[in-house]
Amino acid sequence: MSLITLTTDFGLQDWFVGTLKGVILAKNPRATIVDITHGIAAGDMRGGALALAASCRFFPKHTIHVAVVDPGVGSARRAIAVKTERYLFLGPDNGVLSSALRSERIRKIHVVSNEKYFLDPVSRTFHGRDVFAPVAAQLSLGLPLDRVGPATQDFVNLPWPQPKPRRSSIEGEVMYIDRFGNGITNLDQAALKKFPKPAVYLKRKRLCGVSDFYQAVPLTQPVAIFGSSGLLEIAVNGGSAAERYGIKVGDRVKVLPSGSK
Amino acid sequence: MSLITLTTDFGLQDWFVGTLKGVILAKNPRATIVDITHGIAAGDMRGGALALAASCRFFPKHTIHVAVVDPGVGSARRAIAVKTERYLFLGPDNGVLSSALRSERIRKIHVVSNEKYFLDPVSRTFHGRDVFAPVAAQLSLGLPLDRVGPATQDFVNLPWPQPKPRRSSIEGEVMYIDRFGNGITNLDQAALKKFPKPAVYLKRKRLCGVSDFYQAVPLTQPVAIFGSSGLLEIAVNGGSAAERYGIKVGDRVKVLPSGSK
Amino acid sequence: MSLITLTTDFGLQDWFVGTLKGVILAKNPRATIVDITHGIAAGDMRGGALALAASCRFFPKHTIHVAVVDPGVGSARRAIAVKTERYLFLGPDNGVLSSALRSERIRKIHVVSNEKYFLDPVSRTFHGRDVFAPVAAQLSLGLPLDRVGPATQDFVNLPWPQPKPRRSSIEGEVMYIDRFGNGITNLDQAALKKFPKPAVYLKRKRLCGVSDFYQAVPLTQPVAIFGSSGLLEIAVNGGSAAERYGIKVGDRVKVLPSGSK
Repeated sequence: MSLITLTTDFGLQDWFVGTLKGVILAKNPRATIVDITHGIAAGDMRGGALALAASCRFFPKHTIHVAVVDPGVGSARRAIAVKTERYLFLGPDNGVLSSALRSERIRKIHVVSNEKYFLDPVSRTFHGRDVFAPVAAQLSLGLPLDRVGPATQDFVNLPWPQPKPRRSSIEGEVMYIDRFGNGITNLDQAALKKFPKPAVYLKRKRLCGVSDFYQAVPLTQPVAIFGSSGLLEIAVNGGSAAERYGIKVGDRVKVLPSGSK
Repeated sequence: MSLITLTTDFGLQDWFVGTLKGVILAKNPRATIVDITHGIAAGDMRGGALALAASCRFFPKHTIHVAVVDPGVGSARRAIAVKTERYLFLGPDNGVLSSALRSERIRKIHVVSNEKYFLDPVSRTFHGRDVFAPVAAQLSLGLPLDRVGPATQDFVNLPWPQPKPRRSSIEGEVMYIDRFGNGITNLDQAALKKFPKPAVYLKRKRLCGVSDFYQAVPLTQPVAIFGSSGLLEIAVNGGSAAERYGIKVGDRVKVLPSGSK
Repeated sequence: MSLITLTTDFGLQDWFVGTLKGVILAKNPRATIVDITHGIAAGDMRGGALALAASCRFFPKHTIHVAVVDPGVGSARRAIAVKTERYLFLGPDNGVLSSALRSERIRKIHVVSNEKYFLDPVSRTFHGRDVFAPVAAQLSLGLPLDRVGPATQDFVNLPWPQPKPRRSSIEGEVMYIDRFGNGITNLDQAALKKFPKPAVYLKRKRLCGVSDFYQAVPLTQPVAIFGSSGLLEIAVNGGSAAERYGIKVGDRVKVLPSGSK
């Protein structure tokens, strides 16, 4: 199996992603490379972490997941490779892997430091090309994990905003705005179990109830649903909630029992 | 043969397309997946239909074409799989497949309803991932079409604006604006046969004649050509007709014999 | 080996790139196709040349590099195929291949004119689909180069701005703005050898010195580094230099010894 996924903030405007693939295929011409996304906002580690966590589990066992959102490239931050029960994760040790790892059974963590497997020379600005791509290719060819560098015990965890349960409500926040303008929150179904008929408040105003699908409300009306990542998201049927309500990452979302205030 | 194409409005900003590919490769690791486009405007079924119709016939026989522009996801709209002489088409039964099917010899139409081939659970918001991707993968592995659900006789046809022939002119409209700012109309060469030296009017103003290629006119000048889809398109040599003339989808385009008014 | 790369200005909004891939796979179902980028600005031959030159050398030997930035499509401009020691390059003869070819040992140049290997009919507007894709596929299957058309001796060289050495400084210019807002110049390390402690001036104002990596300066501060293409680039740590300083392609960048004026 030699399936490698890429999650980066490189965008598709330039030649960066294509170059990574060239490096991988030069080492392992049989690798299958899949883009999870390259549309993460520049340097947005939380966006990268969310994308990887939402997507990685749909890939077959033994997939190598490479995530490069790496504002500290060239500085002292480490690179790590993490073997879990199902996958291998590779990226800078800045938290971009940490959300995905929360749902995985971790087997081994290694620092990626053995320059033997890097491109020569290694630039100070493009480790995606010079470090992560060639190491991923070698791992896909069967290189044992302990060859990439010494074992380690821990990795950087990205601080992740937790929902705040109040006496008769729960408060979350918008974590991500997707291309449809849906605002994805940090509230999952477990968090809302206490509220059989929940009312959703955005920035202190009552917005809507929770429905099962977008067209459950009339066109142009707001709707909250548990989206495909299992998280509550705020949407507009046939429109963009982000545009309509000016939703931004970090905005407060409160859920109360219907009828209360 | 296990070539699967994807045409969606998912965009490339998020992890949606990558996730679809993960689901497909988890079922059929040998599938080759090609993006036709994921840049269809959100919910724009006509744009999706046009992209699929313009591109699908260039793929090899037995390709599985999956199109997911699906504003009604989770509601009662059906999903269908259509076997034609050359291809297999898969998507929501909302018309997004219908333009492509107009040029194909249809062999069988089946409703896609057998949950055995879906992901479990099926979300109400992301059938691309939960229904269309796994069913496409199974079909690429040779699953007989009648296993996905019962046969049916018809499918939803997207209303498609027809050119209106007048006594001494013909009126069409802009169907699509491409990335170069070219306005692609619904007028093909057959429609213009009666006009050996056609003059093209946009929004009631004479714009230009019909040429063979963009550089047939000086830089920055307007030009109408039969583009790569066989449809008349309005362009500017070295520029964007959409920007210059404020062209929008739905704008009227009239063709008269040169010299008349 | 049947690895084909694509570098175009087609964008990913429409069905153009997908269609090219369909044509290639219809001829050679075993081809591996890699996008270098499709985000070159419409008609920007220099941007296309830069992307291809920066990326092509990371691909394995025998890769077929196809570059289609082709504002003169349909006019008299030639198409060429160039065999070098390592690669095969294919594109319009308008200079888009010329920067990449500067670092390659050229073996043979052929005009691409044998219609036997084109789609039939050939449009006047989409030679990516009708000429370059089918010819690339045939070449990937082993078609001898002399079958595509007659040998020729030369190709169009894109004029490339050269750095201007002054008595005690050197003047370059911004060649490209990447997605991070970094302004990539035409100054390489050899050009700056004379300046052990260089000071970088943008549009006549002193901006910063030269550092090794982005985080070598505090957040939001300007920094100049030799980027991953080996060229001096102007950046802002954690921000966009293009936005902050209004950098555009063509802007002057001057390097002086530190302390001088």
